[in-house]
Amino acid sequence: MKYNAGMASTMRALVKTGAHPGFHLTDVPIPAIGPTDVLVRVEKAGLCGTDHHIYAWDKWAQTRVKPPLVVGHEFMGTVVAVGDAVRAVRAGERVSAEGHIVDLTCLLCRTGEAHICERVEIIGVDRDGAFAEYVAIPEYNVWRLDPAIPDVCAAIFDPLGNAVHTVMAAGVSVKSVVITGVGSIGLMAIPVARAAGATSVYAIDVNPRKLELAQQLGADATFSATQPDLVDEIKRRTRGDGADVLLEMSGSGAAIDLGLQIVRNGGTAALLGIPADNVNLNLAERIIFKGLTVLGINGRRMFETWYQTEALVKSGRVDPSAIVTHVLPYTEFDHAFDLMSRGEAAKIVLDFKGDIAKP
Amino acid sequence: MKYNAGMASTMRALVKTGAHPGFHLTDVPIPAIGPTDVLVRVEKAGLCGTDHHIYAWDKWAQTRVKPPLVVGHEFMGTVVAVGDAVRAVRAGERVSAEGHIVDLTCLLCRTGEAHICERVEIIGVDRDGAFAEYVAIPEYNVWRLDPAIPDVCAAIFDPLGNAVHTVMAAGVSVKSVVITGVGSIGLMAIPVARAAGATSVYAIDVNPRKLELAQQLGADATFSATQPDLVDEIKRRTRGDGADVLLEMSGSGAAIDLGLQIVRNGGTAALLGIPADNVNLNLAERIIFKGLTVLGINGRRMFETWYQTEALVKSGRVDPSAIVTHVLPYTEFDHAFDLMSRGEAAKIVLDFKGDIAKP
Amino acid sequence: MKYNAGMASTMRALVKTGAHPGFHLTDVPIPAIGPTDVLVRVEKAGLCGTDHHIYAWDKWAQTRVKPPLVVGHEFMGTVVAVGDAVRAVRAGERVSAEGHIVDLTCLLCRTGEAHICERVEIIGVDRDGAFAEYVAIPEYNVWRLDPAIPDVCAAIFDPLGNAVHTVMAAGVSVKSVVITGVGSIGLMAIPVARAAGATSVYAIDVNPRKLELAQQLGADATFSATQPDLVDEIKRRTRGDGADVLLEMSGSGAAIDLGLQIVRNGGTAALLGIPADNVNLNLAERIIFKGLTVLGINGRRMFETWYQTEALVKSGRVDPSAIVTHVLPYTEFDHAFDLMSRGEAAKIVLDFKGDIAKP
Amino acid sequence: MKYNAGMASTMRALVKTGAHPGFHLTDVPIPAIGPTDVLVRVEKAGLCGTDHHIYAWDKWAQTRVKPPLVVGHEFMGTVVAVGDAVRAVRAGERVSAEGHIVDLTCLLCRTGEAHICERVEIIGVDRDGAFAEYVAIPEYNVWRLDPAIPDVCAAIFDPLGNAVHTVMAAGVSVKSVVITGVGSIGLMAIPVARAAGATSVYAIDVNPRKLELAQQLGADATFSATQPDLVDEIKRRTRGDGADVLLEMSGSGAAIDLGLQIVRNGGTAALLGIPADNVNLNLAERIIFKGLTVLGINGRRMFETWYQTEALVKSGRVDPSAIVTHVLPYTEFDHAFDLMSRGEAAKIVLDFKGDIAKP
Repeated sequence: MKYNAGMASTMRALVKTGAHPGFHLTDVPIPAIGPTDVLVRVEKAGLCGTDHHIYAWDKWAQTRVKPPLVVGHEFMGTVVAVGDAVRAVRAGERVSAEGHIVDLTCLLCRTGEAHICERVEIIGVDRDGAFAEYVAIPEYNVWRLDPAIPDVCAAIFDPLGNAVHTVMAAGVSVKSVVITGVGSIGLMAIPVARAAGATSVYAIDVNPRKLELAQQLGADATFSATQPDLVDEIKRRTRGDGADVLLEMSGSGAAIDLGLQIVRNGGTAALLGIPADNVNLNLAERIIFKGLTVLGINGRRMFETWYQTEALVKSGRVDPSAIVTHVLPYTEFDHAFDLMSRGEAAKIVLDFKGDIAKP
Repeated sequence: MKYNAGMASTMRALVKTGAHPGFHLTDVPIPAIGPTDVLVRVEKAGLCGTDHHIYAWDKWAQTRVKPPLVVGHEFMGTVVAVGDAVRAVRAGERVSAEGHIVDLTCLLCRTGEAHICERVEIIGVDRDGAFAEYVAIPEYNVWRLDPAIPDVCAAIFDPLGNAVHTVMAAGVSVKSVVITGVGSIGLMAIPVARAAGATSVYAIDVNPRKLELAQQLGADATFSATQPDLVDEIKRRTRGDGADVLLEMSGSGAAIDLGLQIVRNGGTAALLGIPADNVNLNLAERIIFKGLTVLGINGRRMFETWYQTEALVKSGRVDPSAIVTHVLPYTEFDHAFDLMSRGEAAKIVLDFKGDIAKP
Repeated sequence: MKYNAGMASTMRALVKTGAHPGFHLTDVPIPAIGPTDVLVRVEKAGLCGTDHHIYAWDKWAQTRVKPPLVVGHEFMGTVVAVGDAVRAVRAGERVSAEGHIVDLTCLLCRTGEAHICERVEIIGVDRDGAFAEYVAIPEYNVWRLDPAIPDVCAAIFDPLGNAVHTVMAAGVSVKSVVITGVGSIGLMAIPVARAAGATSVYAIDVNPRKLELAQQLGADATFSATQPDLVDEIKRRTRGDGADVLLEMSGSGAAIDLGLQIVRNGGTAALLGIPADNVNLNLAERIIFKGLTVLGINGRRMFETWYQTEALVKSGRVDPSAIVTHVLPYTEFDHAFDLMSRGEAAKIVLDFKGDIAKP
Repeated sequence: MKYNAGMASTMRALVKTGAHPGFHLTDVPIPAIGPTDVLVRVEKAGLCGTDHHIYAWDKWAQTRVKPPLVVGHEFMGTVVAVGDAVRAVRAGERVSAEGHIVDLTCLLCRTGEAHICERVEIIGVDRDGAFAEYVAIPEYNVWRLDPAIPDVCAAIFDPLGNAVHTVMAAGVSVKSVVITGVGSIGLMAIPVARAAGATSVYAIDVNPRKLELAQQLGADATFSATQPDLVDEIKRRTRGDGADVLLEMSGSGAAIDLGLQIVRNGGTAALLGIPADNVNLNLAERIIFKGLTVLGINGRRMFETWYQTEALVKSGRVDPSAIVTHVLPYTEFDHAFDLMSRGEAAKIVLDFKGDIAKP
């Protein structure tokens, strides 16, 4: 690869080496880049639930992932090399990137809907990813970072973008909003929804610690999903009508059913959480008679969501670092996944620069 | 009631007299009207699947309907009396009417969404209806008929409106459209979708006779729901993407699952058909990853749908009489329901005027 | 009139008595109400630019207003009587009201667009208004006030609604917003736009005192309309693109031309300000090549805007009292108009209750 | 240029050689292509009003065009060479292309609004174009042609796309539509609007021959712009309300003013025609009080409009060849512009293949 003359030929990376739990920290070749790609020196990267699925090698991971694979998809860093046909990105630029690699030739890619391209490949899932010293990425996917955005925030623009896309797809301006499931994306959705104009934001979860975080992040009120009269409780707070908008971020069938009861006739339900199994729904009562709009939400819009995310962070309306509970050297990845497993972290960021990157 | 001086005090009506199958043709008082109501002499009325549920006294009917009740909700006729505070409707006017009586005071009624008012009462279901010589209706619900609309078409503006509302909510202009379930409303949706700008309309059903009717009404192609490769077949006809729009009019869980597979990523599915039971869905694959918009459809917009329906019929773009297979005197209602039961009729209209109306 | 048994038959009112400047405080009959109307004891009322036009008897007023006329259209008070066919409003309820009396029978009224009914009559302009002890209003127009809304805020829901309707029609969620013209409605639009989710709000005016108020009300930056490089200045603050949204609230042709330059390609311009004369526009450069969406804004949506206004005020996101600089007894109306003329007031509210109302 | 080994190095082209009227048919180098470009052998090309402006060297052309320049932007042909980084287009493919070359890096290009990129360059206007044997074009701009689309139709996808974009931006499904100005794009808008679901299409022009063509192309009625009671006439045909949608395709200030009067309150006006000078408008009466939505229309959406255009033509809903009055060898370009000047042609297509292409 001509673009990295003078660079080492290998790098340190977290690799899924085979069909078993865990990752290995090992040396792999620095990825080659094609004429329309760029090579990025990774500096910080976010840990996602998806990474944990692959680490734990659960049913979903076994079906989807083909080892060996460099994992990780949320990151920021600095461009170190660019392909011949790259038109705007330059070496030295500080960037993050959209991790969904799309075909750019299908109907969806050609009509502003690339985020739901049928032939998407996700870095760190379907091809080598960002938990490494270097990652190769098409220029199309690169997001140049505004200097005002701190590294830790920039590293989690991807999941923050999930929250922003869900909120913006639903439309929350001067509306009452209920969020079911306040994991890291659900938590981020709280300040995002407030900043995007929600007049009230209510959070529902089964975990009291998450509800406490939700309160700290600006929820107007929080509720246990097991509270018996919850539908009536929300109606009492919304003129008797129910919430205008549901943001479903749990993936739980019970939460989906509850959320659809809570949203008012004519309201909108945006579904981001991914149920592990089929969901049994009373479509007549929950969706049809109510005249609901139900939106399937996937990824982030390229790149409308990225512009919105930048605007929210840069204007100070949203501070994503508020949910980052840990920043750890990437060598401590086992510890990081352990924290995640035990529910002791909201969002963990791994550092790939520091003084660690000396093999 | 002062408004019908000189009129008889009783009228002939089809009445659900008790908790058992069938209707009785009997004499009941002519309904009284309040200050904001009008009284209509019914001339023609359409038979709906809902009427058949009540006639057959099935599980749904047993839960919902409280006899005694004058049944029927699709109709047209002539205004014979108006209340003191009626502002625009006059005796002698030829009218149809929206059968959903709404409260006019809730959020939805006050923001242009009266069709999904939570406190709706449907004539012929929750209060006395239109299979009678006279029916009382709020002025708000009255639709004045253009002289160019024939009686038989006017009598079925209500179900035609279901088709129009579904088509217009989904948005079909320059789109490919699949309709699952071509009962009478599904059939009407075919010419409506074509007139509203669909570039292709595909009909799917299990009943070959209905598919034949669908072809006659202008479907570009029709398919048996049991055809094994149907998802691929539709993809082949839609550039490999799948249909832009699904209009679900069967209420069958299997059809909903099939339809959601047929619609392309980023497409729209409008659900009008009412499943009798819960539906088991792979929400992740069918809705969330695909970025689908799923719309629950109920009734007809008041009165946007009525204006649209009139424009479609008056311009000649849609001829609803094409699906009326029978016009019968209302005294032959048992015969009419028998035709419906045996699947020998697409749409039946009852005549309440003729020479029958001799009190 | 039977509804006010025991009440006096006359009331104090501010009346435009003839074709000359000024109003007279005089006794007139308490208005009669029809079966679908309510009678309201006025408590507080807002002074609007329109009232000042009529007071000053300018060209517009001479064309539009037919004396004698009770003036005023922004108000709140308590219902004292209701007509026979009133269905939900009760005597004793605390209310404000939409001052646009619409026909309720046209296409627009029947499809959720009553605010642009062609046959609208405005109270205090086309028929007797609210600067009086009592005002008659159709039940349809009544807005029941939440107890949490203070009287002074409730009295100006009408102009606040203009601001809310403009902001919501344009759509400001996670967008950059420029407001040209920060009179009382433009000022209110600042907190409304912020609450509705704008990530930045820039105010432009020719009057330094208004710009100071704009800053106090939360504008991110304010600019004199005469600043020579203003288009570039806004571009610098918006990634080089220009503002996403223009809210035009001045009615000045120069401001409209400037604002259309400031808004980015593909952006939205909502025009609320009413130019006194024709405007000369380079439509090609300002609108067509830019792919702009230009929205004419009139009144407030019935009643979507009222729900939104209530939600904004009740949630504490917007405090309209912040722009009320004076609350005066209605007998001091000449003083009030003098303050308005001299630009010494942002918003003035007249009190019609106090101990003044002793005829 | 390595891509055309074995090809001649020069080609025949229509060239604007200097600051004076007319074009020259001359030999110029075959254009070089970069790594993301393709080279197309032009077969058929459409003549546009823009070409005529450049030919006649009018005021607009003098300001915009820098000779020498190969002119022409509407075309179809066959790919003969592709750059190294081209990913999907192959030599031998039959293609048309979007003539707006955009930067692909700005906000608009990155959010599905590339058609209004601020740094657009138009082929045949700002850089070498398609009235030549060969044209170079970025892969991004290429539209692969369905075999079912005839050459003559494919050659005019660009202006047909203007009509489709205008119609689809306005939204005509089940609406009444007025078109002001039925030049070649206005004429194409008639069958497009009908196919897209308009329930009525009315055409207005000053030229009786164009109105005759409009009638032939499916207008429900046509009117001279000078007819004195035209606003009332359209109201009579639209329930007294006015047209739902205006498609302004004349660029005449008088037509814009008339059209804005004809569209109903709450309606939509899409402006495609480009006024040569400023337009003097009563914004208050024509746009603001009416609550109008006015859309500036530029180019065609990339590539939503192209998909829609293909769907309309391939389904047989629209036949663009109906407006092609002449197909001429490209050597007869002077004759072609003469026909245009004299108003004797609706749409002219030049043939660049035939047996002419022997350098």
